[in-house]
Amino acid sequence: MKRNIEQVQTLLEALPYIKTYTNKTFVIKYGGSAQINPKLQEKFAQDIVLMYLVGIKIVIVHGGGNKISAMLDRLQLKSEFIDGLRVTDEKSMEVVEMVLSGSINKEISSLLNAHGVKALGISGKDAMLLKAKAMDNGKYGLVGDITAIDNSVVKNLIAEKFIPVIAPIASGESVGHPGYNINADLAASKIAASIGAEKIIFMTDTPGVLDNEKNLFDTLREEEIQKLKEEGVIFGGMIPKVDACLEAIDGGVKKAHIIDGRVEHALILEVFTSSGVGTVIKK
Amino acid sequence: MKRNIEQVQTLLEALPYIKTYTNKTFVIKYGGSAQINPKLQEKFAQDIVLMYLVGIKIVIVHGGGNKISAMLDRLQLKSEFIDGLRVTDEKSMEVVEMVLSGSINKEISSLLNAHGVKALGISGKDAMLLKAKAMDNGKYGLVGDITAIDNSVVKNLIAEKFIPVIAPIASGESVGHPGYNINADLAASKIAASIGAEKIIFMTDTPGVLDNEKNLFDTLREEEIQKLKEEGVIFGGMIPKVDACLEAIDGGVKKAHIIDGRVEHALILEVFTSSGVGTVIKK
Amino acid sequence: MKRNIEQVQTLLEALPYIKTYTNKTFVIKYGGSAQINPKLQEKFAQDIVLMYLVGIKIVIVHGGGNKISAMLDRLQLKSEFIDGLRVTDEKSMEVVEMVLSGSINKEISSLLNAHGVKALGISGKDAMLLKAKAMDNGKYGLVGDITAIDNSVVKNLIAEKFIPVIAPIASGESVGHPGYNINADLAASKIAASIGAEKIIFMTDTPGVLDNEKNLFDTLREEEIQKLKEEGVIFGGMIPKVDACLEAIDGGVKKAHIIDGRVEHALILEVFTSSGVGTVIKK
Amino acid sequence: MKRNIEQVQTLLEALPYIKTYTNKTFVIKYGGSAQINPKLQEKFAQDIVLMYLVGIKIVIVHGGGNKISAMLDRLQLKSEFIDGLRVTDEKSMEVVEMVLSGSINKEISSLLNAHGVKALGISGKDAMLLKAKAMDNGKYGLVGDITAIDNSVVKNLIAEKFIPVIAPIASGESVGHPGYNINADLAASKIAASIGAEKIIFMTDTPGVLDNEKNLFDTLREEEIQKLKEEGVIFGGMIPKVDACLEAIDGGVKKAHIIDGRVEHALILEVFTSSGVGTVIKK
Amino acid sequence: MKRNIEQVQTLLEALPYIKTYTNKTFVIKYGGSAQINPKLQEKFAQDIVLMYLVGIKIVIVHGGGNKISAMLDRLQLKSEFIDGLRVTDEKSMEVVEMVLSGSINKEISSLLNAHGVKALGISGKDAMLLKAKAMDNGKYGLVGDITAIDNSVVKNLIAEKFIPVIAPIASGESVGHPGYNINADLAASKIAASIGAEKIIFMTDTPGVLDNEKNLFDTLREEEIQKLKEEGVIFGGMIPKVDACLEAIDGGVKKAHIIDGRVEHALILEVFTSSGVGTVIKK
Amino acid sequence: MKRNIEQVQTLLEALPYIKTYTNKTFVIKYGGSAQINPKLQEKFAQDIVLMYLVGIKIVIVHGGGNKISAMLDRLQLKSEFIDGLRVTDEKSMEVVEMVLSGSINKEISSLLNAHGVKALGISGKDAMLLKAKAMDNGKYGLVGDITAIDNSVVKNLIAEKFIPVIAPIASGESVGHPGYNINADLAASKIAASIGAEKIIFMTDTPGVLDNEKNLFDTLREEEIQKLKEEGVIFGGMIPKVDACLEAIDGGVKKAHIIDGRVEHALILEVFTSSGVGTVIKK
Repeated sequence: MKRNIEQVQTLLEALPYIKTYTNKTFVIKYGGSAQINPKLQEKFAQDIVLMYLVGIKIVIVHGGGNKISAMLDRLQLKSEFIDGLRVTDEKSMEVVEMVLSGSINKEISSLLNAHGVKALGISGKDAMLLKAKAMDNGKYGLVGDITAIDNSVVKNLIAEKFIPVIAPIASGESVGHPGYNINADLAASKIAASIGAEKIIFMTDTPGVLDNEKNLFDTLREEEIQKLKEEGVIFGGMIPKVDACLEAIDGGVKKAHIIDGRVEHALILEVFTSSGVGTVIKK
Repeated sequence: MKRNIEQVQTLLEALPYIKTYTNKTFVIKYGGSAQINPKLQEKFAQDIVLMYLVGIKIVIVHGGGNKISAMLDRLQLKSEFIDGLRVTDEKSMEVVEMVLSGSINKEISSLLNAHGVKALGISGKDAMLLKAKAMDNGKYGLVGDITAIDNSVVKNLIAEKFIPVIAPIASGESVGHPGYNINADLAASKIAASIGAEKIIFMTDTPGVLDNEKNLFDTLREEEIQKLKEEGVIFGGMIPKVDACLEAIDGGVKKAHIIDGRVEHALILEVFTSSGVGTVIKK
Repeated sequence: MKRNIEQVQTLLEALPYIKTYTNKTFVIKYGGSAQINPKLQEKFAQDIVLMYLVGIKIVIVHGGGNKISAMLDRLQLKSEFIDGLRVTDEKSMEVVEMVLSGSINKEISSLLNAHGVKALGISGKDAMLLKAKAMDNGKYGLVGDITAIDNSVVKNLIAEKFIPVIAPIASGESVGHPGYNINADLAASKIAASIGAEKIIFMTDTPGVLDNEKNLFDTLREEEIQKLKEEGVIFGGMIPKVDACLEAIDGGVKKAHIIDGRVEHALILEVFTSSGVGTVIKK
Repeated sequence: MKRNIEQVQTLLEALPYIKTYTNKTFVIKYGGSAQINPKLQEKFAQDIVLMYLVGIKIVIVHGGGNKISAMLDRLQLKSEFIDGLRVTDEKSMEVVEMVLSGSINKEISSLLNAHGVKALGISGKDAMLLKAKAMDNGKYGLVGDITAIDNSVVKNLIAEKFIPVIAPIASGESVGHPGYNINADLAASKIAASIGAEKIIFMTDTPGVLDNEKNLFDTLREEEIQKLKEEGVIFGGMIPKVDACLEAIDGGVKKAHIIDGRVEHALILEVFTSSGVGTVIKK
Repeated sequence: MKRNIEQVQTLLEALPYIKTYTNKTFVIKYGGSAQINPKLQEKFAQDIVLMYLVGIKIVIVHGGGNKISAMLDRLQLKSEFIDGLRVTDEKSMEVVEMVLSGSINKEISSLLNAHGVKALGISGKDAMLLKAKAMDNGKYGLVGDITAIDNSVVKNLIAEKFIPVIAPIASGESVGHPGYNINADLAASKIAASIGAEKIIFMTDTPGVLDNEKNLFDTLREEEIQKLKEEGVIFGGMIPKVDACLEAIDGGVKKAHIIDGRVEHALILEVFTSSGVGTVIKK
Repeated sequence: MKRNIEQVQTLLEALPYIKTYTNKTFVIKYGGSAQINPKLQEKFAQDIVLMYLVGIKIVIVHGGGNKISAMLDRLQLKSEFIDGLRVTDEKSMEVVEMVLSGSINKEISSLLNAHGVKALGISGKDAMLLKAKAMDNGKYGLVGDITAIDNSVVKNLIAEKFIPVIAPIASGESVGHPGYNINADLAASKIAASIGAEKIIFMTDTPGVLDNEKNLFDTLREEEIQKLKEEGVIFGGMIPKVDACLEAIDGGVKKAHIIDGRVEHALILEVFTSSGVGTVIKK
């Protein structure tokens, strides 16, 4: 009986969140452990299904996990790294695309379909979704900067109740161009802004943004982030994450979340309970 | 001026075909030289755009060309062949899927997008399009027989004026199953029947069905084919092609074409002129 | 943290119910303690809101509670009872209607509106919803039998996302007729059958249908009920309840529930958890 | 034959009015003798049906007639009057609501339904239509001033070809609040303005606005009314009527009519013939 | 005041007719004095406008009046008459078409447009509405029998709130054929049946069908007509009229009326009052 | 085979034009030899069908050819000409209208219908399309200047996939007015501007606008035309043509073409090939 009361309690606590988010669009950057660990994959799928069923429109953008490096190794293609970015030549690009669009993308789409929602794996090359040019005049080879988004395919798919799963690859400017490798965080932010998403959620392997005492910031405003970066509190790998958040926020997305994908059901906890599991960044 | 007259003549001759085919759906099995040869690729794209613009709804199913074997070789994965089919183990399957869904599929989608139509590359795993089970109790490993089609994604996409480009991969029965490798001709036929296509066109590296004197049959009826197979006139690699045609015809598709993809603009010639470029098979 | 895990667990357990019931219509006969006790009223409202938000279409039919008797007493109108039914003369009918349609109906509508859903209180007299004739040739005065249902107003309101709250009063045959007092259980059953409801739920002051040892029947089939009535296991006030259930079931409603409205959140427990709180009757 | 000619004449004279008013919305404040006298009720219903059939969208707001006082007397609830307003305590409010929403409201809805149109009786409490706060800080108890209108229910109902019949009761600010008693004239004006009505028609027991010689003003402009009030030509009970007219006009309603509900078919005469039956007030 | 009462009376008497006919389609064969006499033309236009405004969908088919003969005379084209039909050669046909489609058709369309409804004059040749072949193997030249109706243009126009005004000319079978002259009564009947009209009304220069004592038959059933024709009570020019009525009735039109177009406002009297002005023929 | 290659070439060259013009509206002023010569008529019809089938929305405005004069002669009605305009009295007007709306209009509509598109012949009098007043205070009798356009009928017809064929006749201001004879070029321009046409094409008996050496101007800008008129390069009958072009261009039409209707398939050549056949005038 006590169990019952708690069940009811939980459902009722979810009510205001359901009310607020129904018919809104969330873009989820899926990456890190949550993408690799089979148990966390399963939880992720359950979370997506729940959000979908209460009427949230979902768009997933995924990264490449560690599969790209593994395949490049198997094919004995070596990569140079500059500024932490893999310099991508044409031969590597072929592998990057193949792994992202053909392997990981379909793995995620399959996972969700197996849970009873209709997910559809596409690449940024499809339906002219993403166009790019070489970043920094080609310093990193085929690593690209998004130059144009045609979001009609995403809007069509979510209107028809599909869940688009997007590989962060963009078309080049000319016919026959091998395309560009896009940072998944930025692709997610740009797409979120373009379609007027309510929320963007970055699933990471960190608890969120931490202060010097390793305490979590629940909420950060745009201006605070600038200060924290200057003070060196936000540093290293967290910088591109918060920058992707700001990109989304500046583009009109209401809230950007950096959550801990290592926590089981991190999405449900973040979205439907008062127990947030990361840092939320607002305008 | 003579040129002008002939231009007008050609356009007027195309009229009855346009009248007949507008708003009808064609499934095109894209394969062979037309898929590999860059010049033929370009012509293929132009043909698709013309058909699309006069109101024909297009669905493309593609094969793997020779890229799968090449990649398997690079990864030193050896294949056994039984009955002409590659026995596909899990390791090979991973590569088959990656090459089909991630490389070839996106190459075609990019090609068409670059010509100004909105093509969308998906796999049979997406949106539960194709489900399969192991063929002949697993004699060929992960080579599969289609057991179920959920065509809603294809119908949605063509209704929204996209061109679906489909990789012939199917989901397995259980979560986490690596999926099945499906014969592209059969996948095309099954999909064509399922969506009530008007026509299915197989682009091949043959002139069509030939008689003993190497003359082309323009038209064949279902019953004639049975006879020609028995007499050995149709034999070898042509048998699975005509079987795929019959599969489509029996499923309600009006006409199945085996055309010569090595001829430039074979599709336009077949669809918009009185000069057919292969064999048409009718009920 | 343990709390979190349980929260997530509960939400996930609710998933299959949400999946099944979204876009289905439930008719709820609201009565007994749940209608009178302020604390239970509040829980009822929360339950309705939750069901509404996950996409269930709700229709509420209410009874008169004890307010009718109280008002008749204050107005010194005495009632004769025959066969457990209040013989309703014109003077009493005026009071019955006023209390049902003007007081209780608006109390429920207000309660739900205050919780953020759009409830709309109407009477069976509105928009020609219910027509009736005198029961048993007028043996009970203006107690009526439903003769016709025009469900267009109910269908319109639920299509427009309103929650109709219906007072069980019906029009008479002629202009100026004072109308008929209808048994709320039967009104609910008839309306549920007419609109093709998925479920009808009777909120009562009993745990459900009990056997001779006071153990609850979880599930009963139509044929079992007949037998239990004949054996006297179902007797007294439970007979009209199960008859109303059968009326609904015979009219095509999938399941009829007799639940214990005295249990807090009985509706949520019944609809979203595996802990049923009463008896379900199926065909 | 002469009869025929006149019939035709009348129908043709009605033409320009039909042309002008089809698809427009009229709010009718139903009150006075027209609401109480059975013969006038019948004429009123016929008039409403005619307007409805030629395409006018009708919204009815009704008063309480003398039924409220009668019921308060029967229940021995005494009322104090201040400034001509009944000070309404909670006990009286319960009766006011019950009589308005449960008795009069359903009487009107029944009357119209019996004439073959689909009328739907609701209260301002339904679907959050009217919210109010205590007038003059509660000087008159639960007599309220409208603070918010959510007209979605009215718009939905008229779009679906129902005739909403509205009891002038409003919700209070908090859950469980007994609600407020609203002046029906003002409720009608506010609703008319909110839904962009073409006309508001007040059915009264006066010939309209009279000058000092008891001659009827056919037409009055806003500025003239101010002057007539200052000069004392408009005085007493006519003041709140013209104020309600001005409220509507200022809110964008094109014309406000004060007509003599004691004249049979006053509505038809006013709307479809050149013989106006009262005073029209314009901006 | 007495005038007022009668006005109201007339409007109320029209109510049941408006209720019955709104959204129904009437085909009106316009001919005889009503088409020629300017005063009657004006009344006709007013009647059409009234019917249109209360929601009746109108289709008008007109004859040629005496204008065709006049123009043939002016052009010194002589006509032979066989069986009362003008034998129409190609030269005459040109004139017949020109007068019907270019002069009379536009006169009627202009007349109605000037009264504020959107009338659209077309010929049976337009949008493939009427196809015909020579009657009796060409015995009467280009007098035709309707062989096919494509009513899409009529349905489109009435759905878009236009009033189609149709000249009774039909296309021939071949390109360049001058077309056929069709009996307007039959054209009206065929069109009425084809579009599922509620009523067809023939405006004639007779009081209706008369018995031997020159008394009007109010109503006739199909079987009575056969008997009256055999007995010679219906004879001469009335025979084709009643045959056209039967053609319509057999095609599913509910009622066919032969009315006296010489009576002013014959249409209004017939449609909106209990004073019929001719004979109605029912199945 | 060479033939095949050229066929394909032509179809592909048409592609960009089809892409650009699909769903756009073209107004075609049909006149001159193309309207009179049976062989050119046939080519014209084929051209219209091709344009229609690839998705171009077509509106045709026609002139009177030489049929008006012929009929006036046959009826011995003489015409005075002032400033090159036929002074049109009422008697002539009757003939002008009859020939335009009843003979030529239906000839064109029949021609197109016979080729399998749904053409609908109307006059500017229909559905209040064109209103006019006398030009220059009646100096030319019933020759009119357009004063108002109600394009709803044209928009409706093209939305419903009909091809409106319009006779250049306009209503007068009063009921019973015989209407006005409108210059067909100007009627076409005004209609094109009113409906936001992409192109207006004038079919003439000239090669286009020529310079002093009889060389064709391919393209002219608005400002050049003024200059050429001043210099006398554009003179005589070409002046009203270019003025009609400017009227259209100033009204927002993108391009106005003066093409040589004597060239077979002039429309196809102009619209679908790079071989223009006249002069195009742009802003």
